[in-house]
This record gives sequence, structure tokens and C-alpha cells, in this order.
Amino acid sequence: MTTPLPPGIIHGVGLGPGAQDLMSVRADRLVRGARHVAFFRKAGKPGHARRIVDGMLHPDAIEFAMEYPVTTEIPTSDPRYADRLCGFYTDCTAHLAALSAAGEDVVVLCEGDPFFYGSFMHLHSRLAGVAPVRVVPGITGMSGAWTASDIPITWGEDVLTVLTATMGEDALTQRIRDTDALVVMKIGRHLGKLRRAVAAAGRTEAAWLVEYAAMPEQRVTRLADVEGIAPYFAILLIHGQGRRP
Amino acid sequence: MTTPLPPGIIHGVGLGPGAQDLMSVRADRLVRGARHVAFFRKAGKPGHARRIVDGMLHPDAIEFAMEYPVTTEIPTSDPRYADRLCGFYTDCTAHLAALSAAGEDVVVLCEGDPFFYGSFMHLHSRLAGVAPVRVVPGITGMSGAWTASDIPITWGEDVLTVLTATMGEDALTQRIRDTDALVVMKIGRHLGKLRRAVAAAGRTEAAWLVEYAAMPEQRVTRLADVEGIAPYFAILLIHGQGRRP
Repeated sequence: MTTPLPPGIIHGVGLGPGAQDLMSVRADRLVRGARHVAFFRKAGKPGHARRIVDGMLHPDAIEFAMEYPVTTEIPTSDPRYADRLCGFYTDCTAHLAALSAAGEDVVVLCEGDPFFYGSFMHLHSRLAGVAPVRVVPGITGMSGAWTASDIPITWGEDVLTVLTATMGEDALTQRIRDTDALVVMKIGRHLGKLRRAVAAAGRTEAAWLVEYAAMPEQRVTRLADVEGIAPYFAILLIHGQGRRP
Repeated sequence: MTTPLPPGIIHGVGLGPGAQDLMSVRADRLVRGARHVAFFRKAGKPGHARRIVDGMLHPDAIEFAMEYPVTTEIPTSDPRYADRLCGFYTDCTAHLAALSAAGEDVVVLCEGDPFFYGSFMHLHSRLAGVAPVRVVPGITGMSGAWTASDIPITWGEDVLTVLTATMGEDALTQRIRDTDALVVMKIGRHLGKLRRAVAAAGRTEAAWLVEYAAMPEQRVTRLADVEGIAPYFAILLIHGQGRRP
């Protein structure tokens, strides 16, 4: 009679905004020690999360690249978008669950913080009751962005609103008008709409665009001076102006 | 003729939510290597930031405890509150500037992220043009809180609102009604008011109170089950319910 193997743990590990030394000591230790490493990426790309850990992985680490079947080719409102992604997350979960059942720990690499607009959340919800999961929080991309701007984001009783630029223009305008401090994520091809919404809210002069925060390509620009389209790693900021004795 | 000493750097270092291994690798290195360490604390207390680095400081490190002259004894709306704090921050800045001028680097210990409702911000603004300052972002207390709750905070296009419980009750209610995901900081003695505002917004069943996230005393409770007053390290959460394929 053999004792059943204890299941392996699936670790959702926040890597922070991009610089390798901005991951937590706990994340650093897990990444360097991992024998199984999984990460999301766009098909044909190295993957942003994977890029952050370049040079850190154990030579024998086995990598599992989870390639999105669709990113921006199908609108998120199209039912086919949800169908394709749902099947994809189910397949990824099955792979991780099989590793866990075989007693193997897995480190899932997550940009920023795993529970803040992260793809890992779709595995986390599917792994509940299937395999033990532990989450390591990370420094968010927005913390990286306001640090890059060298201006604090919230003072005193400032209200901070975090939005995604995928929202409708009127809703964006209303939200931007109605907050002290602002962070906008997921900008990409929505930059034109976002720029109009910020202008309609009368806040263009206070808005900054931070691209590639905490990465070598980091760039901080006043929104009024931004030309062209924003890269994937762009975050818009309006800093709060609250109480400061 | 002697060459003037290059000025020392004042580092504002985010320590994260509380667990020592949740500080970044960069923060860990700076804290362990520091010869001058400064931190805020309430008079007569060891200080939360100082507690996080227990056992990490160099044996020869010189500590500078910056003790708030006032915390909750005077209302923040009273002009005497601003006066007292303003003088205090000016004195702290003068001390750090003198160390920098003598060529000494200083690590200022900051709970969470230095630019997110942090006291360090009041030194940062005063040190501009006086001494070189570098900021290391940290994992916020709110990331620690939603990780402790084991539930993601934002999905898809969820709007996240971050408030302080020090706001008026009607404003709180309106903001809580008007968001998908919610984080409320600075709860303390405002718990009763916050509880009424959450109820008036019809969201009591969705609200969680996280106390001492990422610390040994960590506790996660449904708001409906909370009794008594909340400690300083309490954060209220309502998790977003956005798109999840």
C-alpha cells in the first residue's frame, strides 16, 4: 500500500510592475526555486511576465506558456470571445490541476498583483476545490506608474477612482469629473476616446501618461503632449490634491 | 582645497502590507544596508513601519524616530492640527536634509506604498530641491487585504473606488452605491458611520473587513459579523463582480 502523494501547490505570484528587484522577497524565492513555471502570453510573443523573470529560472525549470487564443481580434462583447477564453482557461486549469495531482508545485507568473485585473483570477476561480492555491500579492502597475511620475497619488481624504479605458465615453467623462485622483488602465487603442473624455471633464492639464513604468523604456508625459497611440503598458494618472499640512 | 561631498540620498522605501518577505528585493537590500533609518510613529509606540523591519537592521544603523505631535487628539479640520503637523514635518525634513548634506544616505521606512496616503509624502514635497530623493514603491495595504480575503478585487471593466472613512456619511453612501469594487481605508473610530453608509447603499452582504492583512493577527470577517471597533490596520472591501469568461 502506498500513501497518496500530497497535492502540489499552485502559486499565483505577483511580479510587480516590471523591474526584477521590485518583486517581493517571497516572489523572488518562489520564482528561483520553481520546477514548474506557467505564464500567459500573446501567441508568438515572449510574454511580459516571462520577460520579467529572465535569468532567474532554475536551469531545470519546465515552462508552460499559456497562449491566449484571442486578444483584440474579437470584441469582448461578442459571445465568441467569452466562449474561446472560457475553453482556454478550462484547458489551462486542467493542466495545472494534473501537475498538482502528481505532487508538483507550480509558480504562475503574474504581472503586477494577481487579484487586480489579472488573468490568473480565471484560473484561481476554476481551481477552487480542485488544487491548493496560494496567492502572493505584488506591487501594482499603477504604483509603478505614480512612482515613475514622482508625484504622490492620494493625500488626506482624496477619493481615488480606477477605471479601464474600455468603458463608454460618457461614462468615462462622468467618472473622471467626479473623482479627486484617477488611474486609467487598459488604454491601448482607446487613447483617443480617453483623451476626449479627460478634455470633456476639464482635466487635460492635470493628466499624465506613464508608459512602461519601472521598465527600461519608462516614459512619463503630460497627456497634452502625447502623440500617437499608447502601448499596452500605459497608465493614465491624475494626482489628488488633498490636504497636506 | 577639498572637493565638496556628494549629497546623500533620501530613500522613501515602501515596506508593503506587513510581512517582512512581502517587501521588494530592492527594499530589502536598502533596509539591510542602511546606516541611517528614519520612521514615523505615534509617541510612546514602537511604530508599525519599524516593527516590520525587526531583526533586519545593520547593528550600527542609527535610528531616527519621527513622533507625530498629534494623531487623533485634535480634529483634522482644526487649524491647530495643520499647524502642529506642518512644524513637525519641517523639523523632520531639516534633520534629513542635514544628513544628506553630510553625505549620508537615509532610508525612510514607509508602510505600504510611500505615494499612497503616506506620511512620507509630506517630507518628499519639502525635500524637493533640497536633497536627492528616490522612492521605492511597495505592495499596498489594500493588496494585502484583498489577497487575505482570497477573492479578486476587480474583473474586466470593474470600476474600483478607494475612499477614506473620514468622509461625511452621505458622501460615503453615494460613493459606495456608485462603484463596482470598493476599498475603504482609515476606518478606526469611523466604523459605525461606515457601517451605516454601506447599509444605506444596500451592500452590507457584499462587504468584508480585513484587519492586520499579511500580519500574524490577520483576520477576515463579513462586515455583518463585525463587532466592536476596528483597529488602525482595518480595510473594508467590496469585491467587483465584472466580466469573467
